[in-house]
Amino acid sequence: MKKISILGSTGSIGVTALKVIARNFDKYKIVGLSAGKNIKLLMNQIDNFHPQAVAVLYEEDANKLKPTLDKKGIDVFFGEEGFIRIATLDSADIIISSITGAAGLMPTFAAIKAGKDVALANKETMVMAGSIVMQQAKKNRVSIIPVDSEHSAILQSLQGHPKDDIKRIILTASGGPFRNLSLKDMANVTPEQALRHPNWDMGNKITIDSATMMNKGLEVIEAKWLFNLSSDQIDILIHPQSIVHSMVEYKDGAMIAQLGIPDMTIPISYALSYPRHIENSLPPLELDKIGILSFEKPDLNKFRCIKLAYEALEVGGSMPAVMNAANEIAVESFLNRKIGFLDIPAVIEKVMSIHKSFATDDILSIIKIDRWARNVANNIIENIKR
Amino acid sequence: MKKISILGSTGSIGVTALKVIARNFDKYKIVGLSAGKNIKLLMNQIDNFHPQAVAVLYEEDANKLKPTLDKKGIDVFFGEEGFIRIATLDSADIIISSITGAAGLMPTFAAIKAGKDVALANKETMVMAGSIVMQQAKKNRVSIIPVDSEHSAILQSLQGHPKDDIKRIILTASGGPFRNLSLKDMANVTPEQALRHPNWDMGNKITIDSATMMNKGLEVIEAKWLFNLSSDQIDILIHPQSIVHSMVEYKDGAMIAQLGIPDMTIPISYALSYPRHIENSLPPLELDKIGILSFEKPDLNKFRCIKLAYEALEVGGSMPAVMNAANEIAVESFLNRKIGFLDIPAVIEKVMSIHKSFATDDILSIIKIDRWARNVANNIIENIKR
Repeated sequence: MKKISILGSTGSIGVTALKVIARNFDKYKIVGLSAGKNIKLLMNQIDNFHPQAVAVLYEEDANKLKPTLDKKGIDVFFGEEGFIRIATLDSADIIISSITGAAGLMPTFAAIKAGKDVALANKETMVMAGSIVMQQAKKNRVSIIPVDSEHSAILQSLQGHPKDDIKRIILTASGGPFRNLSLKDMANVTPEQALRHPNWDMGNKITIDSATMMNKGLEVIEAKWLFNLSSDQIDILIHPQSIVHSMVEYKDGAMIAQLGIPDMTIPISYALSYPRHIENSLPPLELDKIGILSFEKPDLNKFRCIKLAYEALEVGGSMPAVMNAANEIAVESFLNRKIGFLDIPAVIEKVMSIHKSFATDDILSIIKIDRWARNVANNIIENIKR
Repeated sequence: MKKISILGSTGSIGVTALKVIARNFDKYKIVGLSAGKNIKLLMNQIDNFHPQAVAVLYEEDANKLKPTLDKKGIDVFFGEEGFIRIATLDSADIIISSITGAAGLMPTFAAIKAGKDVALANKETMVMAGSIVMQQAKKNRVSIIPVDSEHSAILQSLQGHPKDDIKRIILTASGGPFRNLSLKDMANVTPEQALRHPNWDMGNKITIDSATMMNKGLEVIEAKWLFNLSSDQIDILIHPQSIVHSMVEYKDGAMIAQLGIPDMTIPISYALSYPRHIENSLPPLELDKIGILSFEKPDLNKFRCIKLAYEALEVGGSMPAVMNAANEIAVESFLNRKIGFLDIPAVIEKVMSIHKSFATDDILSIIKIDRWARNVANNIIENIKR
């Protein structure tokens, strides 16, 4: 019986993970749940999964929940401190890290320091502090198993093939909704247009990242750390059907790929059952019905965020954290109609150009530089005239 | 240093295998070579690879070679007995079994009985006597590693994934040159048309098998024995680009596929270096340049050989050997313009309908029934009026 805590149980990854767990109560038990503001859904999850402890974002919400949960013998925590409690519960074997954005870093790092295995959906943990996190994981013999469909595909394509024989990996990308727009038309897209992703149903931040293809840039950095690769071993191919989830090319020219319908159930389930494949109720992939799979190179002039991510990775040190912070602020500002779609890479580039990268093995210095970059990004955005 | 004997060194698999070996003299050494009638090429190979022993098909050729090879200290054998000597050389670690057709069975079986690992390109070994061969291999702890691109792809897609989690495998097929012809037009195709394969450069027999799709039928039977599957776990998809070489679907809906340019160097090299991937000089697979991969179900009314192969597999026992023998005679007769293209499945079906299948663990009874089926097939063909 694997005992599981979820960071971000009311988000789309958390909800799907709980569906997988509900189908497999003989294999998995929830011990901790944590959520941001969706208290109603959290209460529902508590009733169905009977955790030992829960955490919410705000103290106010925690206080409201306390009387009811006290009766059930369930501990209630709040804020980052609360998330860290959920991430380090004595009884937990594995943490599903599915808080979106930089807020996921500290609780995930705490889980690793506490020796918990991590099913990682929070890209930012690796983007901001990949070196520090992997060092800590190695020291504590912690397994970090990717939940992203692309990285899960890579993990599955690496099984049983010697690491020394890898030539490169290829992350596939849907290309988002604007793949065929001209740069001129991209300048005028609205948040509503950007939020319509063709294949995957995800949170708002990730959907915008997918439209700018920064999502793929973040994944390149994540892959670097997860699989210990150099940046020239990581390529991106646009594959609009989102069926081939990623590939590994070996030295003999053989490529191993993982395919599946675009449903997060498969990578989430694999992260929990790794290296086993456990049944679910999904419809099968029928390639004859899909008919055609297509592939093309991404246009780096249109999708400048990809270039910026590779640059941040090359520079290394604190630069990826700065890039990530600038991106989060820029995406938020785009969603709030403060800036245009093409301002997103412009803001990130500006912040990166101001930052002088430094090497560090102190996670707190990463948190500090994240805050600095957010401030700088906000200042830059204030000065953009729409 | 792996010591290798090749059965069929002057055929297309043998020649490619020797190229792989020539690039890796630090890893591989040829100890035995054997060929049919291409003595000139064999002599050339002897000069380059310095085997301890060689075998040729005819005694006459062996006698001609003897004086020259005696001086070099190289033993010369001939006929089936000679091939068996090459397959069982004391010094050999692994045998590349690449004689085409039923003639490959006895030497390959002899290698397994002698405890040699086998890189298997000869499908007929498994089609005719899969049960007997796998039993013997298990008893002698012999590894049988497939060389066929499809089975190599399956082997590669199975690495590191639990066998219990397999749902099914999907063998891909180019569909051959007549995929888009009507049944009426198929009746009139000539040997010249059938010998023009769109993607792979292979021997004549295999190229015709590819045009009738019997090739895929034989591969279904081979896969059944190599990977210990039931016939309803083996599916076929037409994939005209021959880039995805085959796939494994797991219980969670994840599919693992092996892709590569259509060049036998990759599966041959993998069979020798398994489970390593060793560098070669092939151009890389560039999916963005290929652009599109397509998939469709095969039309079993047009490609009746597939149906016949599944039927033979279901019946089991001696039936697949009978089917295989009838197919070899029918293909030969088509190449000699004795029968038409659609007569191939008709002849096979007729022979199968006459045979009453029996179970056996005696390889000689398989050889016997093979001869019987050839005679019956020839008789049937004599009675076909063109």
